[in-house]
Amino acid sequence: MGSATALAQRINNLGTENAFAVSLAAAEWSSKGNRVFPFHLGDLNFTTPAHVGEALARAVTDGKTTYCPGAGILPLREALAADVGALRSMSIHPDQVVINPGGKPVITKFIQALVNPGEEVLYPTPGFPIYESQIEYYGCAPKPYRYVPTDTGFAVDLDFLRAQITPRTRALIFNDLHNPLGTEATNDERRAIAAMAVEHNLVVLSDEAYFETRYSGTSESVASLPGMAERTVILYTFSKKYAMTGWRLGAAITPMEIAPVFSRLNTNDESCTTHMVQYAGVAALTGPQDSVASMMSELRVRRDAAVDGLLAIPGVSVARPESTFYLFPDVTDTMTAMGISDLAEFAEKALHNTGVSFCTRRHFGRQQAWEDRSYIRLAYSGINAPEIAEGLEGMRAWIVSEIDARGAR
Amino acid sequence: MGSATALAQRINNLGTENAFAVSLAAAEWSSKGNRVFPFHLGDLNFTTPAHVGEALARAVTDGKTTYCPGAGILPLREALAADVGALRSMSIHPDQVVINPGGKPVITKFIQALVNPGEEVLYPTPGFPIYESQIEYYGCAPKPYRYVPTDTGFAVDLDFLRAQITPRTRALIFNDLHNPLGTEATNDERRAIAAMAVEHNLVVLSDEAYFETRYSGTSESVASLPGMAERTVILYTFSKKYAMTGWRLGAAITPMEIAPVFSRLNTNDESCTTHMVQYAGVAALTGPQDSVASMMSELRVRRDAAVDGLLAIPGVSVARPESTFYLFPDVTDTMTAMGISDLAEFAEKALHNTGVSFCTRRHFGRQQAWEDRSYIRLAYSGINAPEIAEGLEGMRAWIVSEIDARGAR
Repeated sequence: MGSATALAQRINNLGTENAFAVSLAAAEWSSKGNRVFPFHLGDLNFTTPAHVGEALARAVTDGKTTYCPGAGILPLREALAADVGALRSMSIHPDQVVINPGGKPVITKFIQALVNPGEEVLYPTPGFPIYESQIEYYGCAPKPYRYVPTDTGFAVDLDFLRAQITPRTRALIFNDLHNPLGTEATNDERRAIAAMAVEHNLVVLSDEAYFETRYSGTSESVASLPGMAERTVILYTFSKKYAMTGWRLGAAITPMEIAPVFSRLNTNDESCTTHMVQYAGVAALTGPQDSVASMMSELRVRRDAAVDGLLAIPGVSVARPESTFYLFPDVTDTMTAMGISDLAEFAEKALHNTGVSFCTRRHFGRQQAWEDRSYIRLAYSGINAPEIAEGLEGMRAWIVSEIDARGAR
Repeated sequence: MGSATALAQRINNLGTENAFAVSLAAAEWSSKGNRVFPFHLGDLNFTTPAHVGEALARAVTDGKTTYCPGAGILPLREALAADVGALRSMSIHPDQVVINPGGKPVITKFIQALVNPGEEVLYPTPGFPIYESQIEYYGCAPKPYRYVPTDTGFAVDLDFLRAQITPRTRALIFNDLHNPLGTEATNDERRAIAAMAVEHNLVVLSDEAYFETRYSGTSESVASLPGMAERTVILYTFSKKYAMTGWRLGAAITPMEIAPVFSRLNTNDESCTTHMVQYAGVAALTGPQDSVASMMSELRVRRDAAVDGLLAIPGVSVARPESTFYLFPDVTDTMTAMGISDLAEFAEKALHNTGVSFCTRRHFGRQQAWEDRSYIRLAYSGINAPEIAEGLEGMRAWIVSEIDARGAR
């Protein structure tokens, strides 16, 4: 007789965000009295705008402490329909908006609602690791697609993506303004992807978590392209724009006919999203927006400090993205010059020699056979500009001395 | 070519809480200018204690607006381990506590973590409808067990339950202090159920949402019985005790070795439970408890008003439960005397003739072949005592006049 708490087999197919191990290593190193430069955190060290907190407190006083509908409160669904629609030149009805406890729950609900076991889901790799986890957890077939480096960052390998499509392909996950690559699609790329989705009748999850996290230009949604509104679920989150990661507030914007299914999943999974937090979301959307601009202004300074610091390191190549708060430098040549072949070893030595803590490509979905370069990921959302410069200068000095020492041997 | 948004087949197996339809019918009736007596709401018309709201606002000011660990913040896990353990005479380690956005998510995570497709899950019917929904959604085999009426309420039909167990039986869901029956197990019943779970090596979900919602005596957890701690997941919620339904705060208390799996499901599904709300939970557990006693005192007055009002209606039989805020009267004889054979028709006529709105047995899992009596469910959590008396007196008068009119024909 086995253990009563033996796990169900499906748990073997459940992935996770293993960047947690990086946080743990950094915390351990710090606890021994060492200075740590935290480039591993995808969280923001900005405070949520004060009026959002005030709206939260007021909602409690106003008695918004009871259950609310599984789809969310109407004022928030209305505000999101207006805001998300306006920024994408789309007409969105409040009934298409299903509030969720963050953007992340939209991933599992998209897979659950729309993809049968055995059907193929195209998803970006490297990419947000929960895509791969949820595809596999629900017995669907993971079909990774890839990026190629360009002068300005990365681009989807469209020929490769096209070749991955089969009659069993059901869904495409598209993450424009990309974590971890920090890149965004060109108009041509978005149009090519939309054309593929329409031609092969795919349903699309457009992860737009970073849609308004950008330093110049404006974002465009693949959902707004011809034939796409009726096949696209937009993942929306308050987390990045308003520094509200811990509030757990987001939404699925879905074609009208599937919104009730997302609501029914909510009713089963968590009843509703925290009631008073939804009023805080209304305040965030409809209140003053100056905090967004000032945060982006500060993030831009950090971006430049991080890019400049990285480009000073021998062998590193990195783009200067106009969106997100991530950099994805290629460190292959640096590692070769240092005589290090393993990414985890490089990261560990960087931490122990310089205090610089970061994730690597391995934290963003399984590495694929075609990958022959080594990348790390730096987030500059949780570290200030002076520490960015200091940390990366320390890393440069260490790397130069290691290369020099090796050359002298 | 079908619709791009054709639903996955698994959605056909997803149930819901269809009590929503009752709320809708009540709202429609009310919108036409009619008075409604809301006995259908399982929500509380009490305010959350003020110090809990203050702790929430303080947590925002203190910057608890970022992500936190998937398992929850340590202070809340520590407070829950101490409180839940003390009230159950169990020793619980904080690492056994996994915070969730409400008690409800524990149901789906229990099924996902521990039951394979095809394995049987014993669950109470009538019962909380999400049990049945999640068992079937994950391809497990639903095995309903039943209750029999007693002088003081209802009791699990232990012989029936025992006969349902097969070599394929994997799990047992036990809801002591029961929604919708309002009943609680005797010590003998709990011991018999624990013995069955141990003998057949079942894993147990003990839904203890109403553990501290009681008018006399003290609750006992099946998890505290010999051989049970290592096979039982306790569903804990802040919703009822502290009038915090809309805050979405609860926890799974699990055997040590499966807590990490619950955390991994959190990481996939919602990252973490709303950060600042967890500090509100600490304040609820460790702050003044006088609001709990005063709420229970008021609920007791309502219970007596509701039971007295129901017992005045010809043909109705109902117990006076010492826990929960639900009544589950048998209205079979009343309906027969009125010449009504359909429960939905009875409920609709009651609403349209008296404004009294309630759920019926049909909102608590599928009706089974062996059921030959008709029950309705009245919640007295969202309606004050004077309205309870007035509403039920109106229902009595209507029923008496209907019976008289029928006798006169």
